[in-house]
Amino acid sequence: MRNVKIGVFDSGLGGLTSVKNLIELLPGADLIYFGDTARVPYGSRSSSTIMKYAKQDISFLLEKNVDLVLAACATAGSVLEPAYTASLPVPYFDVIRPAAKAATSTTQNGKIGVISTEATLASGSFKRELQYLGDYEVFQVATPLFVPLIENGYIRRGNIATTSIAEDYLRQLKSSGIDTLILGCTHYPLISDIIGYVMGPNVNLIDSGAEAAKSIANHIVGGCFGNGSLRVYTSDLPMRFHSIASMFLGDENNFISEQVDIEGFPPYSAE
Amino acid sequence: MRNVKIGVFDSGLGGLTSVKNLIELLPGADLIYFGDTARVPYGSRSSSTIMKYAKQDISFLLEKNVDLVLAACATAGSVLEPAYTASLPVPYFDVIRPAAKAATSTTQNGKIGVISTEATLASGSFKRELQYLGDYEVFQVATPLFVPLIENGYIRRGNIATTSIAEDYLRQLKSSGIDTLILGCTHYPLISDIIGYVMGPNVNLIDSGAEAAKSIANHIVGGCFGNGSLRVYTSDLPMRFHSIASMFLGDENNFISEQVDIEGFPPYSAE
Repeated sequence: MRNVKIGVFDSGLGGLTSVKNLIELLPGADLIYFGDTARVPYGSRSSSTIMKYAKQDISFLLEKNVDLVLAACATAGSVLEPAYTASLPVPYFDVIRPAAKAATSTTQNGKIGVISTEATLASGSFKRELQYLGDYEVFQVATPLFVPLIENGYIRRGNIATTSIAEDYLRQLKSSGIDTLILGCTHYPLISDIIGYVMGPNVNLIDSGAEAAKSIANHIVGGCFGNGSLRVYTSDLPMRFHSIASMFLGDENNFISEQVDIEGFPPYSAE
Repeated sequence: MRNVKIGVFDSGLGGLTSVKNLIELLPGADLIYFGDTARVPYGSRSSSTIMKYAKQDISFLLEKNVDLVLAACATAGSVLEPAYTASLPVPYFDVIRPAAKAATSTTQNGKIGVISTEATLASGSFKRELQYLGDYEVFQVATPLFVPLIENGYIRRGNIATTSIAEDYLRQLKSSGIDTLILGCTHYPLISDIIGYVMGPNVNLIDSGAEAAKSIANHIVGGCFGNGSLRVYTSDLPMRFHSIASMFLGDENNFISEQVDIEGFPPYSAE
């Protein structure tokens, strides 16, 4: 029996926070990761452009014969339509539904915050999912500079610039009385210290990438034995990616990485 | 006699600082601007990826029958090889040579600083150009977060985050004793107030986009009459671009913008 093969894609590095969780929960799975580093970030682009990029990313993963696809990029997951993801030949997961579920089981006062990219906010994906699950008050703000700050290593607790930008972005959310905050982008766990400091100790943070990994682990029953592998593909040269990836995965995870010409992949379509 | 037609490209918005200067200096020229907003930023990508993108941008402008091409993106201008730009069927300008020339006529003590993206720094383009012009001491640092901060509107003098990041980036340059600093990216004039505040009153700032516009105006003798036009093309949807563009051009400049599928353009090659 072969290992289950999980395909994960993201605009860049963020999805590696999901990969880290998948390795812990499913050590026998083979992981194929694609990071679209030649076109990152997705979150400030239009939904039609993001949709095209995400469908090319899915084409690439399907060509690698994965058994399931995880859109470990909330922005991509937010613009892909349910009819499209249902048409894929393998099960599809995103980070939105699992995070919404975790938030609704965490909140005590029914007031849930969401921080995300601009495109995710515009799509209304988290709000729709939360309000499908119950009568929650949802407060959402876009935090577009977090991804560039994180990709440039401005992540240490106490960093003046990141803390000051976080205070700007989160001021309104703080005064809204939320007790639960969804980190609606898989990059954000890297600055959960700063976000937690700004929001204060009474707000629970939900890591959307970790919740998605848990939901995949629940879906796969008994299909993982032995040692799994990790293969990483990027659309830009992998060198720079490799060095930054250690921030996400820790040094103990060695992997091979390779470049892919993603513009050559036609956006996947079932027709 | 028809107006001269100038093609300008940039990774995104930054090149509009050159356009603003071109409109002032050559009010009779027809300007075609391409901003690669679906793939911005260029400065943190590998030189092979940037080179491919820049050659596609040039293909697009040549198809519009421009009389000359300005790479209003120092990053693109830094990775394109002289043999390649010499092979173009129309004159080619970048922002590097004009800025270097202006810096060498400005400096008193021969110590010149350059701030730029990572890819521009890695290419060595400004340093090579400056040292070709004379025996100057060159101090260069990469300032990768300036472009995202500017594209997100963190540009006001006194902004805590941008000032704190500028202080981080410029600390070494400040202590090097430079009297002239090249803003080696066409975005940076938007935060010249903050950069000037951090560097202090004894350092002259050189605007690379403005210097490039001057050098084009000197090249075109008598070819501009009447009123010119501005057409803007972007690879992502133009709406968002349009609203931010007013920061660069001012409200008096109205223009039509249109989307282009840049991935469909083969990188221009003379062979």
